[in-house]
Amino acid sequence: MSERRFSEAPVTDLMTIDEFDAAIRAVGAERYHDKHPFHQLLHGGHLSKGQVQAWALNRYCYQSAVPRKDAALISRVHDRELRREWLHRIHDHDGLGDEPGGIERWLVLTDGLGLDREYVTSMQGALPATRFAVEAYVQFVREQPLVVAVASSLTELFAPKIHKERIAGMLENYDFIDDNVMAYFKRRLNQAPRDADFALDYIKRNAKTRPEQDACVEAVRFKCNVLWVQLDALHHAYVEPGNIPPGAFRPGEAND
Amino acid sequence: MSERRFSEAPVTDLMTIDEFDAAIRAVGAERYHDKHPFHQLLHGGHLSKGQVQAWALNRYCYQSAVPRKDAALISRVHDRELRREWLHRIHDHDGLGDEPGGIERWLVLTDGLGLDREYVTSMQGALPATRFAVEAYVQFVREQPLVVAVASSLTELFAPKIHKERIAGMLENYDFIDDNVMAYFKRRLNQAPRDADFALDYIKRNAKTRPEQDACVEAVRFKCNVLWVQLDALHHAYVEPGNIPPGAFRPGEAND
Repeated sequence: MSERRFSEAPVTDLMTIDEFDAAIRAVGAERYHDKHPFHQLLHGGHLSKGQVQAWALNRYCYQSAVPRKDAALISRVHDRELRREWLHRIHDHDGLGDEPGGIERWLVLTDGLGLDREYVTSMQGALPATRFAVEAYVQFVREQPLVVAVASSLTELFAPKIHKERIAGMLENYDFIDDNVMAYFKRRLNQAPRDADFALDYIKRNAKTRPEQDACVEAVRFKCNVLWVQLDALHHAYVEPGNIPPGAFRPGEAND
Repeated sequence: MSERRFSEAPVTDLMTIDEFDAAIRAVGAERYHDKHPFHQLLHGGHLSKGQVQAWALNRYCYQSAVPRKDAALISRVHDRELRREWLHRIHDHDGLGDEPGGIERWLVLTDGLGLDREYVTSMQGALPATRFAVEAYVQFVREQPLVVAVASSLTELFAPKIHKERIAGMLENYDFIDDNVMAYFKRRLNQAPRDADFALDYIKRNAKTRPEQDACVEAVRFKCNVLWVQLDALHHAYVEPGNIPPGAFRPGEAND
């Protein structure tokens, strides 16, 4: 009886750095959105232009929320060096001076897909589930302990693989996609690993108890859910017929 | 009777832009902290080095909170152009690349005053009233309507005058102050007016109802209070004898 209790006790031993690293990466292997059927369809060339449009305009909501998420993190940081390091993420997305930034590159993609820019940035046609998921991410970063908020960025560890697949697959499979509109993903191939390395090192140094380590792993799971939910919503609305919710983008119609 | 009621009704007419501008500036004339007796003492050369040290290390708390305040604002902004514009405020304080930024320049001042940098940045010796006031400002910007949050920055309209007085007065009156340690204020002579002009223009365009205009004026009053409270606390603790609270910086003692 006491043995049984012992074996059911919560694990409280600190993970080694290698175990912690492996636990973070295992989340990606299990549930990063490269596993989602919608991505298989997207990369494999199995979507219509209208479906790709729906993906791009929904994903805009996520892109445009990222600098707010990063500012929310910076707003909580008392360490000037960490703020300085994190700030370039805002530059990467919003641009700085003549550098237009990732959101502008995303709009080059939606332009290239023939979507009206004002319609895209209004987010009027985006799925409510997308917007809820994205705002949940901003709130998570605003409210969770700092090390956990940092950990939630770590899906970037898994991003280069999906970006490479996406660039190759979409260029090969869609005649409405060219190099120019894929500029966003090409740029992220360099940005994401730098950021992921920094954040991973940060949580290894700053998650000092097992509950903190577990919360970091859970944060990566949470973030994978934020991404997965967006693809589920797209899949439901735009792959299965008859499910586009009221007010959402309808391919092939004037949407404004 | 009905006439009396009419005259007591709340004023709901939109102010003209000129009236709104004047109402904002009237707050500065009434209660900006250049009116505080502690500033008269500071600029007039009537403080001891220990009292100037107390001022500088308390004011560090304010300086170091400003980028968090600006990030809190950016974290709420959905308009990319506004985020891009506001971001340079974080650069101004935290620095960017080789540019060290205002907080570093503030630490040059505290270095020059002979304060240990680690002690200053730990904020251990700062007055609790200072820290409460500063954090109230960060929270205000995080929580108030955006136009009101922007308005709270408008004490910068009144800053160049006090900075000029401070540079001249402190250089003239204290042998422990030189050009180098006043670099922070010299830099702000250019930065503050640019920022104030932008913010003033923003609230003129975006406060569209009388209650919004009134809330903007009130925000400047709030911010003046944030600044005034800090000088009250310094005055009470370091000018009147015997009032230094437990744990706070004590001039002339080893403080660490």
